Amino acid sequence: MNFVLSLRSASVRAQSMLCVGLDPDLSRIPAALGSGEAAVFEFCKAIIDATASEVCAFKPQIAHFAALRAEGALEDLIRHIHDRHPGIPVILDAKRGDIGSTAERYAIEAFERYRADAVTVNPYMGFDSIEPWLAWPGRGVILLCRTSNPGGSDLQALDVGGEALYERVARLAAGPWNTTGQLGLVIGATFPNELARVRTIAPELPMLVPGIGAQGGDIEATVHAGLDAEGWGLIINSSRAILYAGRGEDFAAQAALAARETRLNIRSVQQARA
Amino acid sequence: MNFVLSLRSASVRAQSMLCVGLDPDLSRIPAALGSGEAAVFEFCKAIIDATASEVCAFKPQIAHFAALRAEGALEDLIRHIHDRHPGIPVILDAKRGDIGSTAERYAIEAFERYRADAVTVNPYMGFDSIEPWLAWPGRGVILLCRTSNPGGSDLQALDVGGEALYERVARLAAGPWNTTGQLGLVIGATFPNELARVRTIAPELPMLVPGIGAQGGDIEATVHAGLDAEGWGLIINSSRAILYAGRGEDFAAQAALAARETRLNIRSVQQARA
Repeated sequence: MNFVLSLRSASVRAQSMLCVGLDPDLSRIPAALGSGEAAVFEFCKAIIDATASEVCAFKPQIAHFAALRAEGALEDLIRHIHDRHPGIPVILDAKRGDIGSTAERYAIEAFERYRADAVTVNPYMGFDSIEPWLAWPGRGVILLCRTSNPGGSDLQALDVGGEALYERVARLAAGPWNTTGQLGLVIGATFPNELARVRTIAPELPMLVPGIGAQGGDIEATVHAGLDAEGWGLIINSSRAILYAGRGEDFAAQAALAARETRLNIRSVQQARA
Repeated sequence: MNFVLSLRSASVRAQSMLCVGLDPDLSRIPAALGSGEAAVFEFCKAIIDATASEVCAFKPQIAHFAALRAEGALEDLIRHIHDRHPGIPVILDAKRGDIGSTAERYAIEAFERYRADAVTVNPYMGFDSIEPWLAWPGRGVILLCRTSNPGGSDLQALDVGGEALYERVARLAAGPWNTTGQLGLVIGATFPNELARVRTIAPELPMLVPGIGAQGGDIEATVHAGLDAEGWGLIINSSRAILYAGRGEDFAAQAALAARETRLNIRSVQQARA
């Protein structure tokens, strides 16, 4: 299993660069599903089954499970994706970052316990905080580079000798840090010009782009800025706009419609660009 | 409950700036304790009870529990500390970093589920990734500043306009980001000169200092560099050198001896400095 290749296969097969983010919020889950961990599982499972044909990846966000003591539901959901929708990679959004034996434990958590195909990692502690993840052959390690929040500029936009800190992260990830070809980058959709800069610095890296939909990022600008030379290379995440497209009994069907519409919007910009 | 005040009280009461880090490693736990989550709990509980009189804080590292599906043991251990050793603050070493509703979930995980008094947080995503933690009055939020690993220099040492990135983080944490007085900093013991720089920038912030013992940091240099104006202000962490001081049935007694010796070493430098 190689994340970069399986992501590309899944993208081409589904003609999709859409990733559905699984951020379950008990206050927004249809009441008919009940409450607690079982409701989280049933809600996410229904969303997964309804949207699987529209996506290149799923991205569960671990905090939304951990706050509910729902680690078991997260394990079960990822197993469900692998069993029922084989070939769709799972990106565990955990933004971990630590060193040595601790980083090894986080990698065991993500790759062995949860069976994720890729994980998001924070680069602040440097290369030796990334290296332990690369010991898992073929798994994807997607580094925070330029995040979509306003405060993302506090550190990431600082000039570090003729380039911004996020550009330095992209340059390291495209070069000396990418010893095994497993790296990708997180770049917020709210900064398409910066996404274009990063695509120039890292022409071949897969890029996970949060921030469309609820966070206001623009699909057309994102796709124009971020495509790689082969016209792919983006993992465009939408969470709330799809998960909570409907609030009634037909929530899964509504989610499928929202996912399909988002996939086709992305696809039409991608095709116009080709 | 106010972390900064309770930390100072605990330090003065125990005459200690030693923090014992709880990084349970099943391969190093005495075989007599068995295996799995129950062994992790019994090992850590014995270490806690044996060293409580020597410490100003305990610092469980969450990856070491998550990799073993031992979240329940972590919950039980923190409850045990609060019940049996009231007044000793618990720092959950999680190095989380995210924004908006996700950061809120991580705060629920740390402060409500685990009942931690403080948490370590990664600053790469900027102030709006820190703000949701500050909504929990009195809880400590200890930001990664200068980490003790070699790769810590990859980004943290970059010049961002006349100062290093880690100095900028310290300046923000001592100033505009510390809106509620809840912030502290993580500074590795392997860089005492840089610890001294950060103490100048952030004279009043509590500083969590990993890296003595197994990682090679020097107690004397650390204490000289890091004391605040009142002669306190450090949380000097030791994990493996204490947890695994003995490997036999007397492991807890050996840990207590190692903790006592480390506490007294710290204390004698602190007193010589006064």
